[in-house]
Amino acid sequence: MGDVARHLGLSRSTVSFVINDRTDIRIAEETKRRVWEAVTELGYRPHAAARSLASSRTNLLGLVTDIASSPFGGGIITGAQRAAWEHGQVLLIVSIDSAASADAAMIEMLLEQRVEGLIYATAGHVAVSLPEAAAEVPVVLVHCEDVDGRYPSIIPDEEHGGYTATRRLIDGGHRRIGLINLDAPLPSAGRRSGYERALREAGIDVDPTLVVSGSADAGAGFELARQLLRFTDPPSALFCGTDRMAMGAFDAVREAGLRVRTDVAVVGYDDQEIVAAYLRPTLTTVALPFEEMGAAAVEALNGDIEGFDGSIVRGWLVERDSA
Amino acid sequence: MGDVARHLGLSRSTVSFVINDRTDIRIAEETKRRVWEAVTELGYRPHAAARSLASSRTNLLGLVTDIASSPFGGGIITGAQRAAWEHGQVLLIVSIDSAASADAAMIEMLLEQRVEGLIYATAGHVAVSLPEAAAEVPVVLVHCEDVDGRYPSIIPDEEHGGYTATRRLIDGGHRRIGLINLDAPLPSAGRRSGYERALREAGIDVDPTLVVSGSADAGAGFELARQLLRFTDPPSALFCGTDRMAMGAFDAVREAGLRVRTDVAVVGYDDQEIVAAYLRPTLTTVALPFEEMGAAAVEALNGDIEGFDGSIVRGWLVERDSA
Repeated sequence: MGDVARHLGLSRSTVSFVINDRTDIRIAEETKRRVWEAVTELGYRPHAAARSLASSRTNLLGLVTDIASSPFGGGIITGAQRAAWEHGQVLLIVSIDSAASADAAMIEMLLEQRVEGLIYATAGHVAVSLPEAAAEVPVVLVHCEDVDGRYPSIIPDEEHGGYTATRRLIDGGHRRIGLINLDAPLPSAGRRSGYERALREAGIDVDPTLVVSGSADAGAGFELARQLLRFTDPPSALFCGTDRMAMGAFDAVREAGLRVRTDVAVVGYDDQEIVAAYLRPTLTTVALPFEEMGAAAVEALNGDIEGFDGSIVRGWLVERDSA
Repeated sequence: MGDVARHLGLSRSTVSFVINDRTDIRIAEETKRRVWEAVTELGYRPHAAARSLASSRTNLLGLVTDIASSPFGGGIITGAQRAAWEHGQVLLIVSIDSAASADAAMIEMLLEQRVEGLIYATAGHVAVSLPEAAAEVPVVLVHCEDVDGRYPSIIPDEEHGGYTATRRLIDGGHRRIGLINLDAPLPSAGRRSGYERALREAGIDVDPTLVVSGSADAGAGFELARQLLRFTDPPSALFCGTDRMAMGAFDAVREAGLRVRTDVAVVGYDDQEIVAAYLRPTLTTVALPFEEMGAAAVEALNGDIEGFDGSIVRGWLVERDSA
């Protein structure tokens, strides 16, 4: 700043007023123009730390997440980053190993950067407990729910997802539809009610023996599908709780000497592209609204955060070739 | 600081000296103890911005990457984050959409936070060009190479990976080994030389008709494997450039009425767990040293960065059931 002032023969404070865009002090437009020209020429960059002390605004949002290092849920980061950018804000991401590992130190270090809001996002739909320190700034959770109920959450509409997948199979003419649910409580309960609602609406009795559950991977999908396909009256369609479970179900269908779609229709959940788009046949599935949830969190922090109670965002069906 | 000073009847500067740990000024241990007690009691947190202006060190490292929102390469973030933490440094991650989209603004905003070093990491092994602004702080590239040759890179040893995979198949008794390479130039060239070196070492002639290449996905793997398996003298083993290509190759093997491993051994590349660990049979593959590369970047920034020319890190074979 001293360099610019000397270069132009202006006082240091005049230069400072221009650079900090002080609207309470009148400075000639010509002077402003000369200052900015000199600034560009001399390669001055406002020191974020100094500016933040002066203006009290940092335009920083913190994102604490286990997604950055995970193959799931990357859309949350994409959506949040874009929305922050549109608000002229910078998203500082801190990566944690798992949803359970949010220690106070991670939150503390973002608070020391004077983030003006905090987003806590998880790859899976889980319950979390945040360190006390988080309460110092507005907080929004994405894809997870606060066990203590203190913070608003943006979560996917699991019931609607379960309904959409099941309804797609009913529309395809199926009446015996197996549900291979994942055993994680938060996503599975909603998906099961959606499944049951779709069946009831179509006048189909819910047969609880057709509902099984296990871990979210292909191994569990294989075992559970195999189990259902061995019934004397097996299902003609399977709704699987994750695309990876559907990947395992494909193998069980083949092992039973049957063909996916022709003999057993399969719908997945997640739209995890490296699985869903490349299975043979490609997988019809329910997409989770990751980008939308990430963007919604940034919008919430920029809006009436006091009045924000959270929101439930709908995913959608991605039609491919398995149903 | 004023509150603490008033509370203890000390001068503001004494409190400041204690909090900023000024070793050039002697303060009684008893006074220091009282200050820290009061600080804890009154809930004071050093303002990172103020501290950084005072001390000129921020202990911040910036990571610009397309990995945070991608299903690949998450280990780089995990490794870098852990190493930064061990150095008492905070890793601020900025997510970009693709390796090609590192615009100057993203780099600028990290520089405004006064990061003391910059890591630029990509999900795929590619060539990149960094905005001019990056040159203001030490820079290390991970999993990518600077087209202008200005910055050191930490990259995987692709030649060694190709050698390891091929050698594994030779040790399994195979002599006609197909290479289904990916067409991205940086990783594929090294893998092919490793493949050829392993063959030559074993006294096997390199048959160029057994080397094909395509995009990194399962669709390309399927088509290319199908092509090789239709030869009158088909390969008995396939080394695939990605686990997803191997996933497609599995389907081509099955379509030809053959069995993976028993009839055609397959080795992949990447150790992308959601594919490799759940294919049927599970996939023997070469792991990329993602965590090691991420950690090495942080170590380089904390070491003799002027003398650092980059490094090449070896991956390893992950034995499963496909070869």
